Amino acid sequence: MDTTVFIYIMDFIGTAAFAISGAIAGIRKNMDIFGVNILAVLTATGGGIIRDLIIGSTPPKAFTNPVFVLVAAITANIVFLTVFWSHKSGVKFSGKTRAIYDRIFFWCDTVGLAAFTVDGVHAGLEPSLVSNAFLIVFLGVVTGVGGGVFRDVLSLEMPVIFVKHIYACASIVGAVVTYVWYMASNSGAASLVAGFFVTVVIRYLAMHFGWNLPKISNNGKSAW
Amino acid sequence: MDTTVFIYIMDFIGTAAFAISGAIAGIRKNMDIFGVNILAVLTATGGGIIRDLIIGSTPPKAFTNPVFVLVAAITANIVFLTVFWSHKSGVKFSGKTRAIYDRIFFWCDTVGLAAFTVDGVHAGLEPSLVSNAFLIVFLGVVTGVGGGVFRDVLSLEMPVIFVKHIYACASIVGAVVTYVWYMASNSGAASLVAGFFVTVVIRYLAMHFGWNLPKISNNGKSAW
Amino acid sequence: MDTTVFIYIMDFIGTAAFAISGAIAGIRKNMDIFGVNILAVLTATGGGIIRDLIIGSTPPKAFTNPVFVLVAAITANIVFLTVFWSHKSGVKFSGKTRAIYDRIFFWCDTVGLAAFTVDGVHAGLEPSLVSNAFLIVFLGVVTGVGGGVFRDVLSLEMPVIFVKHIYACASIVGAVVTYVWYMASNSGAASLVAGFFVTVVIRYLAMHFGWNLPKISNNGKSAW
Repeated sequence: MDTTVFIYIMDFIGTAAFAISGAIAGIRKNMDIFGVNILAVLTATGGGIIRDLIIGSTPPKAFTNPVFVLVAAITANIVFLTVFWSHKSGVKFSGKTRAIYDRIFFWCDTVGLAAFTVDGVHAGLEPSLVSNAFLIVFLGVVTGVGGGVFRDVLSLEMPVIFVKHIYACASIVGAVVTYVWYMASNSGAASLVAGFFVTVVIRYLAMHFGWNLPKISNNGKSAW
Repeated sequence: MDTTVFIYIMDFIGTAAFAISGAIAGIRKNMDIFGVNILAVLTATGGGIIRDLIIGSTPPKAFTNPVFVLVAAITANIVFLTVFWSHKSGVKFSGKTRAIYDRIFFWCDTVGLAAFTVDGVHAGLEPSLVSNAFLIVFLGVVTGVGGGVFRDVLSLEMPVIFVKHIYACASIVGAVVTYVWYMASNSGAASLVAGFFVTVVIRYLAMHFGWNLPKISNNGKSAW
Repeated sequence: MDTTVFIYIMDFIGTAAFAISGAIAGIRKNMDIFGVNILAVLTATGGGIIRDLIIGSTPPKAFTNPVFVLVAAITANIVFLTVFWSHKSGVKFSGKTRAIYDRIFFWCDTVGLAAFTVDGVHAGLEPSLVSNAFLIVFLGVVTGVGGGVFRDVLSLEMPVIFVKHIYACASIVGAVVTYVWYMASNSGAASLVAGFFVTVVIRYLAMHFGWNLPKISNNGKSAW
């Protein structure tokens, strides 16, 4: 199958996944249905807009192809209405519902990160754009983490990229795998899928086993 | 009259209005006169800079035409000095002064939103740029809300777009009206004025009558 | 010596200095080694990325020349490991260590501000880009303060530009000096060095003598 199709699929998956994470973040901040839509759309399109501005491809895809904004908005409304009606119809807020939202948030954030990371790497592979492996990886990472940074900064939360272990790390490894695989096999589709799964798996394993990176702690006191 | 002149007037009105809202936000955060200037300039030029980056028109207008930065800075200084001298000369801080600042902030924020929304729609109407109605509206909304998002994120406040009912909503309706009017009448000036007033009126009515959009509440508890 | 070489040196100095300030900000927020790296890289490259997006030079330098990202990352790791090992080997957290970090942060932030300010002015001097003195200075200031704004917004701190007296002010004076010197002498190198030192000296003097700009205070109460 054509690489372009796979990039489109990745964009689509990443958009929907980040839209869900943005919608959950908005609901958590008690935003109304419209605020939830806006946050979801910005989260879903943020990474791609940053990517397009960086490579000088203006207007960004999000402004030339309505499907991404539409997918994000429809997704956000489904999430909002599901949560709205389930609580309306008697589901109580509890540690259990909270854990469910946490889990959905984690998976959507991870899938969005992975999809946009490999997408960003392929945007950097465009002929005559950047010829340096290091910087193609950098573009992949910025595209991957962009949506989440938008979401967190706009909802006044510490960006997940700084506090969740192995977030940008997973993105970097995924970007490297995508790039190396593409260079070795010249198969765009396979490299996208490989990079995507590597990113997801690393992030899942890090969460599951509680992998930690070194941190400087002042005996548990946060301000120093 | 020429459409270009009307766009210029809208830019001018939006710049001054957003500068006042930025100056009030800065004064509220106890910034000094210089911080107030910077915040006002960034609020006033933010939406336009985002618009120009998106349509690939670099350097952005704010950097090629000094009048916008100048208008914003002069406005900010007038606001700062007025507040400074009025309190110096005996006006006490009270619920009443606070309500006055709130009201000025509301109107300036609303006028800025409306002016930049219609301005953004017309930037998207440029020949051969975007041909999709959906996306022209999206560009209008991003341009309209951009300055306020800059102001709120930079002063560490939850962006007004997420928490005030019918903010982005008013911008969307105003953008649609501008676009449809222009397509139907081919009159740039009339479409700008129509879209501007529709945005302002919707936002005023929403505030006045306390219109609300559905929201998911955990019995008043905010974090869940 | 060639102006290009001096611009390169300024970029290099600014990148390293902002990377240190970003690393310290990250360590203060208890980020792990990876978060510290990301924040340092974004702080160090933020001003330059904003500059390149504004003048339409895409992809930004940070994406075409790996040296800046590398310098920022290496610097961040040196800072992290130094702090990590010094506390591991018995140095206690105290008012004294805190004061040392504060002082290093101040100097690095100041040097980064100065280096990117003069760099931004020269980017605006490129033939046929902007011909207006006012706007060349504006580009210098935006480039100078951009990295610090990224750093502060991403770590949920009030941007230093709004609260530290004579921060943007020093940048403006430095930008003016750079521009005027260049116009008068046509020596790029000398104008860069002059603007750099003027910015640093003004900021140092302001800190040392506690210069203040007028501010509106509600008898010490912050919210009004």
